[in-house]
Amino acid sequence: ASLRTELRCQCIKTISEFIPVKQIANVELIPEGPHCPTVEVIATLKSGMQVCLNPDAKWVQIIINKILNGASSRR
Amino acid sequence: ASLRTELRCQCIKTISEFIPVKQIANVELIPEGPHCPTVEVIATLKSGMQVCLNPDAKWVQIIINKILNGASSRR
Repeated sequence: ASLRTELRCQCIKTISEFIPVKQIANVELIPEGPHCPTVEVIATLKSGMQVCLNPDAKWVQIIINKILNGASSRR
Repeated sequence: ASLRTELRCQCIKTISEFIPVKQIANVELIPEGPHCPTVEVIATLKSGMQVCLNPDAKWVQIIINKILNGASSRR
Protein backbone atom coordinates (compact mmCIF):
# COMPACT_ATOMS: atom_id res chain seq x y z
CA ALA A 1 0.00 0.00 0.00
CA SER A 2 1.15 3.49 -0.71
CA LEU A 3 2.05 5.88 2.08
CA ARG A 4 0.07 8.81 0.88
CA THR A 5 1.49 12.16 1.86
CA GLU A 6 0.46 14.22 -1.16
CA LEU A 7 -0.89 17.59 -0.16
CA ARG A 8 -3.32 18.15 -3.00
CA CYS A 9 -6.18 16.46 -4.83
CA GLN A 10 -5.17 13.34 -6.78
CA CYS A 11 -7.99 13.32 -9.30
CA ILE A 12 -8.13 15.74 -12.21
CA LYS A 13 -11.37 14.26 -13.48
CA THR A 14 -13.66 11.47 -12.40
CA ILE A 15 -15.54 8.97 -14.49
CA SER A 16 -19.10 7.90 -13.80
CA GLU A 17 -19.26 4.94 -16.18
CA PHE A 18 -19.80 1.55 -14.58
CA ILE A 19 -16.78 -0.72 -14.13
CA PRO A 20 -17.38 -4.40 -13.25
CA VAL A 21 -15.98 -5.46 -9.84
CA LYS A 22 -14.08 -8.25 -11.61
CA GLN A 23 -11.89 -5.68 -13.35
CA ILE A 24 -10.96 -3.90 -10.13
CA ALA A 25 -7.68 -4.75 -8.41
CA ASN A 26 -8.20 -2.28 -5.58
CA VAL A 27 -10.07 0.84 -4.60
CA GLU A 28 -8.57 3.66 -2.60
CA LEU A 29 -10.75 6.09 -0.65
CA ILE A 30 -9.26 9.40 0.36
CA PRO A 31 -11.43 11.47 2.70
CA GLU A 32 -11.73 15.16 2.05
CA GLY A 33 -9.35 17.26 4.12
CA PRO A 34 -7.07 20.29 4.05
CA HIS A 35 -5.28 18.78 1.02
CA CYS A 36 -8.44 18.46 -1.06
CA PRO A 37 -12.04 19.64 -0.63
CA THR A 38 -13.64 16.50 -2.05
CA VAL A 39 -13.51 12.82 -1.22
CA GLU A 40 -11.54 10.92 -3.87
CA VAL A 41 -12.12 7.35 -5.00
CA ILE A 42 -9.30 5.88 -7.05
CA ALA A 43 -9.70 2.44 -8.61
CA THR A 44 -6.74 0.49 -9.87
CA LEU A 45 -7.89 -1.91 -12.56
CA LYS A 46 -6.37 -5.32 -13.11
CA SER A 47 -4.96 -3.92 -16.34
CA GLY A 48 -2.90 -1.56 -14.18
CA MET A 49 -4.87 1.49 -15.26
CA GLN A 50 -5.95 3.90 -12.55
CA VAL A 51 -9.23 5.76 -12.76
CA CYS A 52 -10.88 8.24 -10.47
CA LEU A 53 -14.48 7.34 -9.76
CA ASN A 54 -17.27 9.75 -8.98
CA PRO A 55 -18.00 9.24 -5.26
CA ASP A 56 -21.55 10.50 -5.85
CA ALA A 57 -22.28 7.84 -8.48
CA LYS A 58 -24.68 5.30 -7.02
CA TRP A 59 -22.85 2.35 -8.60
CA VAL A 60 -19.60 3.39 -6.93
CA GLN A 61 -21.21 3.07 -3.50
CA ILE A 62 -22.79 -0.23 -4.53
CA ILE A 63 -19.51 -1.65 -5.82
CA ILE A 64 -17.65 -0.66 -2.67
CA ASN A 65 -20.23 -2.33 -0.49
CA LYS A 66 -20.10 -5.35 -2.77
CA ILE A 67 -16.32 -5.59 -2.28
CA LEU A 68 -16.72 -5.19 1.48
CA ASN A 69 -19.40 -7.82 1.69
CA GLY A 70 -17.45 -10.28 -0.40
CA ALA A 71 -16.03 -11.81 2.75
CA SER A 72 -19.05 -11.87 5.01
CA SER A 73 -21.47 -13.13 2.37
CA ARG A 74 -19.47 -16.34 2.05
CA ARG A 75 -19.86 -17.23 5.73
CA ALA B 1 -1.68 5.56 -5.46
CA SER B 2 0.19 2.31 -5.47
CA LEU B 3 0.13 0.01 -8.44
CA ARG B 4 -0.72 -3.14 -6.60
CA THR B 5 0.59 -6.25 -8.21
CA GLU B 6 1.30 -8.32 -5.10
CA LEU B 7 0.19 -11.90 -5.52
CA ARG B 8 -0.68 -12.70 -1.93
CA CYS B 9 -2.67 -11.39 1.01
CA GLN B 10 -1.38 -8.10 2.42
CA CYS B 11 -2.80 -8.41 5.91
CA ILE B 12 -1.31 -10.72 8.51
CA LYS B 13 -3.85 -9.70 11.11
CA THR B 14 -6.77 -7.30 11.23
CA ILE B 15 -7.88 -5.05 14.03
CA SER B 16 -11.51 -4.54 14.98
CA GLU B 17 -11.06 -1.55 17.29
CA PHE B 18 -12.73 1.65 16.22
CA ILE B 19 -10.58 4.34 14.56
CA PRO B 20 -12.04 7.84 14.16
CA VAL B 21 -12.42 9.00 10.53
CA LYS B 22 -10.38 12.09 11.38
CA GLN B 23 -7.30 9.93 11.91
CA ILE B 24 -7.62 8.21 8.55
CA ALA B 25 -5.57 9.48 5.59
CA ASN B 26 -6.89 6.86 3.19
CA VAL B 27 -8.53 3.46 3.01
CA GLU B 28 -7.65 0.84 0.46
CA LEU B 29 -10.07 -1.95 -0.43
CA ILE B 30 -8.70 -5.04 -2.11
CA PRO B 31 -11.33 -7.49 -3.35
CA GLU B 32 -10.77 -11.17 -2.75
CA GLY B 33 -9.26 -12.97 -5.70
CA PRO B 34 -6.76 -15.62 -6.73
CA HIS B 35 -4.07 -13.76 -4.73
CA CYS B 36 -6.01 -13.84 -1.48
CA PRO B 37 -9.23 -15.55 -0.35
CA THR B 38 -10.51 -12.63 1.74
CA VAL B 39 -11.29 -9.00 1.06
CA GLU B 40 -8.68 -6.75 2.65
CA VAL B 41 -9.22 -3.26 4.05
CA ILE B 42 -6.04 -1.32 4.72
CA ALA B 43 -6.23 2.06 6.42
CA THR B 44 -3.32 4.47 6.33
CA LEU B 45 -3.54 6.77 9.33
CA LYS B 46 -2.44 10.39 9.28
CA SER B 47 0.42 9.31 11.53
CA GLY B 48 1.65 7.20 8.61
CA MET B 49 0.81 3.94 10.35
CA GLN B 50 -0.95 1.31 8.28
CA VAL B 51 -3.51 -1.00 9.83
CA CYS B 52 -5.61 -3.77 8.40
CA LEU B 53 -9.24 -3.44 9.36
CA ASN B 54 -11.70 -6.26 9.78
CA PRO B 55 -14.05 -5.99 6.78
CA ASP B 56 -16.75 -7.73 8.81
CA ALA B 57 -16.65 -5.12 11.58
CA LYS B 58 -19.79 -3.03 11.41
CA TRP B 59 -17.91 0.22 12.13
CA VAL B 60 -15.60 -0.40 9.17
CA GLN B 61 -18.56 -0.43 6.80
CA ILE B 62 -20.01 2.63 8.53
CA ILE B 63 -16.75 4.57 8.31
CA ILE B 64 -16.32 3.76 4.63
CA ASN B 65 -19.81 4.96 3.84
CA LYS B 66 -19.14 8.04 5.95
CA ILE B 67 -16.05 8.84 3.86
CA LEU B 68 -17.98 8.25 0.62
CA ASN B 69 -20.85 10.43 1.70
CA GLY B 70 -18.56 13.25 2.77
CA ALA B 71 -18.91 14.84 -0.64
CA SER B 72 -22.59 14.35 -1.38
CA SER B 73 -23.78 15.35 2.07
CA ARG B 74 -22.35 18.81 1.56
CA ARG B 75 -24.43 19.48 -1.55
